[in-house]
Amino acid sequence: MYGWEKFMSERDKQHDLLWGKKELYGFGKRPALLLIDIYYSVLGLKREPIFESMETWSSSTGLEGWAAVDKTAELLEVARSNQIPVIHVKGLQSGINSWSRNTRMRVPLSDELRQKGSEIVDEVKPVYGELVIEKASPSAFPGTPLLFHLNSLGIDTLICCGETTSGCVRATTVDGATHRFHMGVVADCVFDRTEASHYMNLYDLHQKYADVVDLAAAKQYFQEIGAISKIGVRA
Amino acid sequence: MYGWEKFMSERDKQHDLLWGKKELYGFGKRPALLLIDIYYSVLGLKREPIFESMETWSSSTGLEGWAAVDKTAELLEVARSNQIPVIHVKGLQSGINSWSRNTRMRVPLSDELRQKGSEIVDEVKPVYGELVIEKASPSAFPGTPLLFHLNSLGIDTLICCGETTSGCVRATTVDGATHRFHMGVVADCVFDRTEASHYMNLYDLHQKYADVVDLAAAKQYFQEIGAISKIGVRA
Amino acid sequence: MYGWEKFMSERDKQHDLLWGKKELYGFGKRPALLLIDIYYSVLGLKREPIFESMETWSSSTGLEGWAAVDKTAELLEVARSNQIPVIHVKGLQSGINSWSRNTRMRVPLSDELRQKGSEIVDEVKPVYGELVIEKASPSAFPGTPLLFHLNSLGIDTLICCGETTSGCVRATTVDGATHRFHMGVVADCVFDRTEASHYMNLYDLHQKYADVVDLAAAKQYFQEIGAISKIGVRA
Amino acid sequence: MYGWEKFMSERDKQHDLLWGKKELYGFGKRPALLLIDIYYSVLGLKREPIFESMETWSSSTGLEGWAAVDKTAELLEVARSNQIPVIHVKGLQSGINSWSRNTRMRVPLSDELRQKGSEIVDEVKPVYGELVIEKASPSAFPGTPLLFHLNSLGIDTLICCGETTSGCVRATTVDGATHRFHMGVVADCVFDRTEASHYMNLYDLHQKYADVVDLAAAKQYFQEIGAISKIGVRA
Repeated sequence: MYGWEKFMSERDKQHDLLWGKKELYGFGKRPALLLIDIYYSVLGLKREPIFESMETWSSSTGLEGWAAVDKTAELLEVARSNQIPVIHVKGLQSGINSWSRNTRMRVPLSDELRQKGSEIVDEVKPVYGELVIEKASPSAFPGTPLLFHLNSLGIDTLICCGETTSGCVRATTVDGATHRFHMGVVADCVFDRTEASHYMNLYDLHQKYADVVDLAAAKQYFQEIGAISKIGVRA
Repeated sequence: MYGWEKFMSERDKQHDLLWGKKELYGFGKRPALLLIDIYYSVLGLKREPIFESMETWSSSTGLEGWAAVDKTAELLEVARSNQIPVIHVKGLQSGINSWSRNTRMRVPLSDELRQKGSEIVDEVKPVYGELVIEKASPSAFPGTPLLFHLNSLGIDTLICCGETTSGCVRATTVDGATHRFHMGVVADCVFDRTEASHYMNLYDLHQKYADVVDLAAAKQYFQEIGAISKIGVRA
Repeated sequence: MYGWEKFMSERDKQHDLLWGKKELYGFGKRPALLLIDIYYSVLGLKREPIFESMETWSSSTGLEGWAAVDKTAELLEVARSNQIPVIHVKGLQSGINSWSRNTRMRVPLSDELRQKGSEIVDEVKPVYGELVIEKASPSAFPGTPLLFHLNSLGIDTLICCGETTSGCVRATTVDGATHRFHMGVVADCVFDRTEASHYMNLYDLHQKYADVVDLAAAKQYFQEIGAISKIGVRA
Repeated sequence: MYGWEKFMSERDKQHDLLWGKKELYGFGKRPALLLIDIYYSVLGLKREPIFESMETWSSSTGLEGWAAVDKTAELLEVARSNQIPVIHVKGLQSGINSWSRNTRMRVPLSDELRQKGSEIVDEVKPVYGELVIEKASPSAFPGTPLLFHLNSLGIDTLICCGETTSGCVRATTVDGATHRFHMGVVADCVFDRTEASHYMNLYDLHQKYADVVDLAAAKQYFQEIGAISKIGVRA
């Protein structure tokens, strides 16, 4: 449906016919939009294909990343104009020892570029009043006050965008489902470095933890919530 | 390395050459063996190919599951004979509302079969003194006292077996890494319903959160720890 | 107000006039009733004064405990008849290493009595359909699926009874406030072994984390919620 | 022992003889020092008695706070000179909705004073390389990466100083015990606004969750750990 079929074996496709998800779970009444780890270091300062971008930014996701950012900017505008709470998630810059044991060699960066790399890209940057959560884990939940804030707002649904599909987006979506939120992942707005990981994680998330939807569906959902909110019948 | 290449695109393979993990992270000094969700309902009472088994057990993993169980039984014996703590994880049977919103039709089961389905299979069943953790989430960490127990024992490394690679094994491995444990996943001892999910999750776990190792390496690690323990120089 | 004054210093009373809580925080729209650790081992099988009861049950709370149990039974009936979800919390019997480092000598008990000691007392025992949460920590939150269940039900308020005021009731109330629930503690329905701890913990909880209310107020709150629920205007 | 007796009833003292803690639990091999919420807003800019200080700083703890800060500075020096990791904890300044429902009137402050109020006092301020954890809860554990960091360092013991004894110190100590750390609370280095709360919380913590020790004992413990560390036999 979203491109995962081309990575599945024939047996997998047959299994999917028997046991695959046939209907969406559905979303709730009080969503928030969660934008996960959309910084320059995973996109680069220029819009370049992944292998060119990696010459400077080792962890870049290339043009697929930028395409997803543009779609995310569209969804962000719809969220803002419908009073859907927006929460940005990024890595905590502190002395906490990292969860990652990764020792890959990165291209050396100047201090200035390294700092720039940690900034949320202009296309989706936070505006006044939007919460920015800093995390020291793949998921946005453990070791952060995200859950406290969602509970205080009565949020029951999280719509996720960002990167990587197989990393922080997946980990956050699993934890959101664990905490009994309705979880949505916008296929057009999540991105990865590895194509097979991107598509198979979308598949896993859709089968087990979330509804994977396209940009149009996510926009429509926010607009419906916004319309209900405006006529004041929301609980 | 463990079979994931055949599911990756050409671009992914090229990316892996540039950025893929080249060296293992390494394990710590005080491991535990974690056996995740190895019940009859995901294996069936008979050893049958997946589609035959699914005629009774909708969520069966078929012969691949049984093959992994046999390897897990081998590793379990090595763990026990080297005084490595063993922890079994299974679903909590209670009135907690499930994290899963899955509404798939399952083959109807008698109460007796349903009960049998929730039992850990004989090949790896707990013996006296081994902890059984019951969970109400995909991962073995949230909503369980697993972390408390690991901390009380000074465990620094978890070696994971069980199912599914793309479900509870993955979620547990991500959470273990988040909590700064050294994580290992035994490729021969984890299993899934979907081949592409199995292999791409192994790939993701190896790239980001864990060392994926084979059965021989896991056995050797436990034997080394056991030998150190016996001569009494372990910290 | 609830008896804490007699344990406070003159300076404390003066401080309370300046900075003490003057108004209740208020409760929300979807409460649950939480009954914490109400077993025979903290009450004894007979209704006896604390020092007599301690001759068999070292951790008994004596007659004050039984008085609170009787009031709790009254509140439980009101909760049940108004469809307020009831959740029982008790200690997990398993191989998890305890959080307590307590090495006090207890009076030796037969296996039968020890087993009886771990049972919830008849006066407030769970009925079919009521959740029983087992915990391996002072608070009912860490290491249990309580939070998942509350979120799945949309609960926004927890009304707490049980023991001890200075132990599991306090720890649970602090964690509930941390997770942004409205917390209530029913002064008549919580109990302790130490009078000063009981009253000063009530004071602390009321000042910082919860509304301490009496039995009548708790009953009235459940009746109001029940009435709203019956006429179907609850959100 | 530490002053709590004068707040206890006669029955409480008798109970304590029967059931009170008689021996320390003992500490572990790898401690960290935790300094909790030691800002100007709870101390004031000048050293004044509590009621004078409250004329500007509503939540001040007065001279008892400053006395504890001076003792904490002594302990901090011993920790630093013995390579004991030091972790500072303070409130998170962000858009997270507070756990506190407190609506008490505070004395109005200028922006400058408010900012100053949120700074850790000079006497114990962090030096380069010391971790500062920001929290949105009473306890330093929930919603922060503290636990991840402690696990990554192999810490098994936390020695706590700061304020308030009945608030963030208590909540943090309970959570540390829940996570199976050895917990210590330095009686001379914790402080509160309410005398009865201070002493009865010390009593509760000592009875259930921690060893309450004096400054001399805490210094000696750090010196012993430092000495072991220097001769290189620490595990």
